[in-house]
Amino acid sequence: MNPNAIGVFDSGLGGLTAMKELCRIMPHENIVYFGDTSRVPYGTRSADTIIRYARQDLNFLSGFDIKAALVACGTISAVALDSIKDDYPFPIIGVIDSAAAAAVSASQNGRIGIIGTPATVKSGAYERSISAADPDCRTISIACPLFVPLVENGHISPDDPLTKGAIELYLSKLLDFEPDTIILGCTHYPIIAKAISNFVGVDIRLIDPGKEAALAICRLLSLNGLTNDSGPAKRSFYVSDSTENFETYGGIFMGRSINGEVHKIDIEKY
Amino acid sequence: MNPNAIGVFDSGLGGLTAMKELCRIMPHENIVYFGDTSRVPYGTRSADTIIRYARQDLNFLSGFDIKAALVACGTISAVALDSIKDDYPFPIIGVIDSAAAAAVSASQNGRIGIIGTPATVKSGAYERSISAADPDCRTISIACPLFVPLVENGHISPDDPLTKGAIELYLSKLLDFEPDTIILGCTHYPIIAKAISNFVGVDIRLIDPGKEAALAICRLLSLNGLTNDSGPAKRSFYVSDSTENFETYGGIFMGRSINGEVHKIDIEKY
Repeated sequence: MNPNAIGVFDSGLGGLTAMKELCRIMPHENIVYFGDTSRVPYGTRSADTIIRYARQDLNFLSGFDIKAALVACGTISAVALDSIKDDYPFPIIGVIDSAAAAAVSASQNGRIGIIGTPATVKSGAYERSISAADPDCRTISIACPLFVPLVENGHISPDDPLTKGAIELYLSKLLDFEPDTIILGCTHYPIIAKAISNFVGVDIRLIDPGKEAALAICRLLSLNGLTNDSGPAKRSFYVSDSTENFETYGGIFMGRSINGEVHKIDIEKY
Repeated sequence: MNPNAIGVFDSGLGGLTAMKELCRIMPHENIVYFGDTSRVPYGTRSADTIIRYARQDLNFLSGFDIKAALVACGTISAVALDSIKDDYPFPIIGVIDSAAAAAVSASQNGRIGIIGTPATVKSGAYERSISAADPDCRTISIACPLFVPLVENGHISPDDPLTKGAIELYLSKLLDFEPDTIILGCTHYPIIAKAISNFVGVDIRLIDPGKEAALAICRLLSLNGLTNDSGPAKRSFYVSDSTENFETYGGIFMGRSINGEVHKIDIEKY
């Protein structure tokens, strides 16, 4: 038993896909969420910048005496996690390995598509993890730089013409590869999973990395006797820009109002 | 005569629309450009954040002993300029008033459309400036939050399907207002002016705020005897993230290679 909170962070709204799953499977855990909305998107930036931002994000969460951190961001997990994870006194779980394992397990034809931000795709992190899990799997990776701005600006309906246009532009080439499984390699992407599924077809399995990472952190805490199994859970949301947009779109995504629960901080102080 | 440089800054690539014009009309001026590419876009962020970022940008340019600054960014000009312009020992020119004056002068039917980032539109700065110049002019303002990510990610061809889709989505309502003049109220937008013109029709006059602001700073320096009229001009480019993307797309836009001329700095130190 450990009542300390779990820290979850992302560049913006995307990590809520992991947060939502974590709330579902660990209903008694206290969870602190940070979305770096004053500097979103991360995935079109350089590795140096992403590492610097990720360190500030973790420094902020460290102030809550957290027992574990979930990097609910494909870009940070792919680009920064290896460089910084040993600098903190708590375990830090990223989204890459659990999503790669789930994809390998789900794929029947051994052809896995990966979509992510330019930084994630450039890192090759998903390919390495898949190859380690099953050297026979073949992969294709496509960068989708506009998906994060689309989600952050509320283009999240399956019928949104711009989101549909971006999906067609990015994913047509992916389909030529004939994958039976696609990793939504950025935690923003499950928010537009329905639109993606409408385009690629229901026979292609979509892997949600936030969901898989939430399961991974649940296993980690359980194995180490660190869960919180009773009492009311406290959930707090912090952002680095105004709370307004985050409350609106975050609330839609969480399936409940989070108005009044979101607080603004200055991330550059950390 | 004053050989000191002119400072030009923007959230990213957009300010190059002003930089290019400034180089053309003032060929002997030394110019320092800063694009805050590690924190672009500004226009979807809150006023507090934009003001803080703008102050850091100006602090950086101050180190060059500049004789004037051109805020080559619609968002900063609309949201931050009034709050910070008196804190620096050199004149600071934004893009609002000169673009508003040009629009009022160009419009025959007194109906002016304004497109800009959400922050610019929310500020109402263009409307106020137009109304001051001609109280009879009517305006409509539309926020186009995805134009900056589209430009920063290289979707700058007039035939780009995503850019065309975004233009149709944002500007259909604008056309119902029947303007004869549209202010491209963000300095990124002239980079996709051809695509915008293809959609709205060649009879609608598009006002380029970077171009108008370059003319305004030229007039200001001339009036005060502060121009540099001879000798080779030095142009320097600084960004806050990796130089790679900026060199590629910035070079396309400037119409010449700027490879090797772009330097990276850490804007959070300023």
